[in-house]
Amino acid sequence: MSKIHFDTIALIGIGLIGSSLARVIKREGLADHIVISTRSESTLKRAEALGLGDSYVLDSAEAVRNADLVIISVPVGSSGDVARHIAGSLKAGAIVTDVGSTKGSVIAQMQPELPVHVHFIPGHPLAGTEYSGPDAGFAELFANRWCILTPLEGTDPVALDRLTKFWEACGSRLDTMDPLHHDRVLAIVSHLPHIIAYNIVGTASDLEEVTNSEVIKYSASGFRDFTRLAASDPTMWRDVCLHNKDAILEMLARFSEDLASLQRSIRWGDGDALFDLFTRTRAVRRGIIDAGQEVDAPDFGRQKAGAKSS
Amino acid sequence: MSKIHFDTIALIGIGLIGSSLARVIKREGLADHIVISTRSESTLKRAEALGLGDSYVLDSAEAVRNADLVIISVPVGSSGDVARHIAGSLKAGAIVTDVGSTKGSVIAQMQPELPVHVHFIPGHPLAGTEYSGPDAGFAELFANRWCILTPLEGTDPVALDRLTKFWEACGSRLDTMDPLHHDRVLAIVSHLPHIIAYNIVGTASDLEEVTNSEVIKYSASGFRDFTRLAASDPTMWRDVCLHNKDAILEMLARFSEDLASLQRSIRWGDGDALFDLFTRTRAVRRGIIDAGQEVDAPDFGRQKAGAKSS
Repeated sequence: MSKIHFDTIALIGIGLIGSSLARVIKREGLADHIVISTRSESTLKRAEALGLGDSYVLDSAEAVRNADLVIISVPVGSSGDVARHIAGSLKAGAIVTDVGSTKGSVIAQMQPELPVHVHFIPGHPLAGTEYSGPDAGFAELFANRWCILTPLEGTDPVALDRLTKFWEACGSRLDTMDPLHHDRVLAIVSHLPHIIAYNIVGTASDLEEVTNSEVIKYSASGFRDFTRLAASDPTMWRDVCLHNKDAILEMLARFSEDLASLQRSIRWGDGDALFDLFTRTRAVRRGIIDAGQEVDAPDFGRQKAGAKSS
Repeated sequence: MSKIHFDTIALIGIGLIGSSLARVIKREGLADHIVISTRSESTLKRAEALGLGDSYVLDSAEAVRNADLVIISVPVGSSGDVARHIAGSLKAGAIVTDVGSTKGSVIAQMQPELPVHVHFIPGHPLAGTEYSGPDAGFAELFANRWCILTPLEGTDPVALDRLTKFWEACGSRLDTMDPLHHDRVLAIVSHLPHIIAYNIVGTASDLEEVTNSEVIKYSASGFRDFTRLAASDPTMWRDVCLHNKDAILEMLARFSEDLASLQRSIRWGDGDALFDLFTRTRAVRRGIIDAGQEVDAPDFGRQKAGAKSS
């Protein structure tokens, strides 16, 4: 089986996702030439210092000129601007994709801007860490993680197949999904958890009688688990909230409804209701571990500073 | 400096905490004799099969008879029953402590039952994992983790010093605190995070249009972080909710208030408010890492199944 290969891949945006792509493309030899483009001069210089690509240009229109595959990895709120800017420079037959966490909004922003002679296939690799920027990327980021493509009607099957093989070569497991369904699934598995994490960290920071230093000191008793998601890139998450509003608001409403009911059980001492919920939720984690999407080591397998090993 | 040492330590309850104590006591040679007691015959047999102690008795009153240090590691709702049962058998001068996550309620339950000739010093090691039972324990559980003692008025300083040295020998860092303040601090750093985690996992399980298998499959995009806390022992957490009700209800009210405000920002597209919150929360994690209470490796340093290392 011959490996998937592109002559030139253009990476627009070189943060955690873009720079991880650059690294895995290089490691796996998926392109002859990697062009890197980002609006920030200092970030572009950093990418060059890290040796992430073969050429580096500030202007994304220039970057895409010879590219067979263009991957846009920018906050979802900027998708439309980027599409508009590169549209006139895209090569006929090029595949244009993105990595945004919302798909309905990205499609609405990008599709009207792009010429008919390119293959626009929206995508979303479900991968990331709480760190951002070109230094944060690593080639293994996509290994064993899902990448969801949301192809539009009439998508060329050859282009879809090439993009699928590309992500597989990066280590991903591939799925396709309707964009609207993607946005609802992601609202519950990703967007709501991040919003709740940001919120609880905010609540804890604002207390008067419990100091911030106490919150930090005793955080290992539960709180610190939430701080990882709440340390994610603010620009990215602001855009996600603004661009998947309807699905997020619905999930928030369900969450708050359930929380009000749980709160009532606590107030009225309904131990059986609490025990039932706390038992039911245990099984979900087991399912995630069995599906190979989580480690079964206690405490995420965290290596504690200062702990002796037995 | 001579090491802290007890002739006989009685461990009442041999779950995650009790069995971790048994292991560290043995490793560090903190007692000549460890007596283990639990109400469940099968759990007691398992503790014996694991070789956790030196003797094993079902009756906690019998277990404490010769003990110089009695450590009660049971769900907080059972503290009063245990105290009542062992009260008449306690040796004069023995130190009696517990490991419960709530202190006001434990003190209210235990203090009236215990004889004046013992030293009752409530305590709470801030340590645990999502696993429970005698097999889940390990000697390093307390290493570099805080243990909070909430001594009552008139506590004998010698007894307090011995208990402090005991926990230090287990690897803990020690603090003392007023019981009421303890309960409020823990409500925000531990109880609220667990309740929120249980709630979000419940909400996700109940969706009609997004299946459970989708939630499990795509959980690595955020959701799975919450499932760890939501896999904690249901009996323990039911009791915590019922026994720190006032502080928990207050923290829940604050959380919900903040969430309503965040939800409003999403609905009305207030990107600046979102960006401000998401930026502010990032600093909290940095503080936790700097305080040595969290790893700085991305993604908790999780070792992904199937990931290649670079």
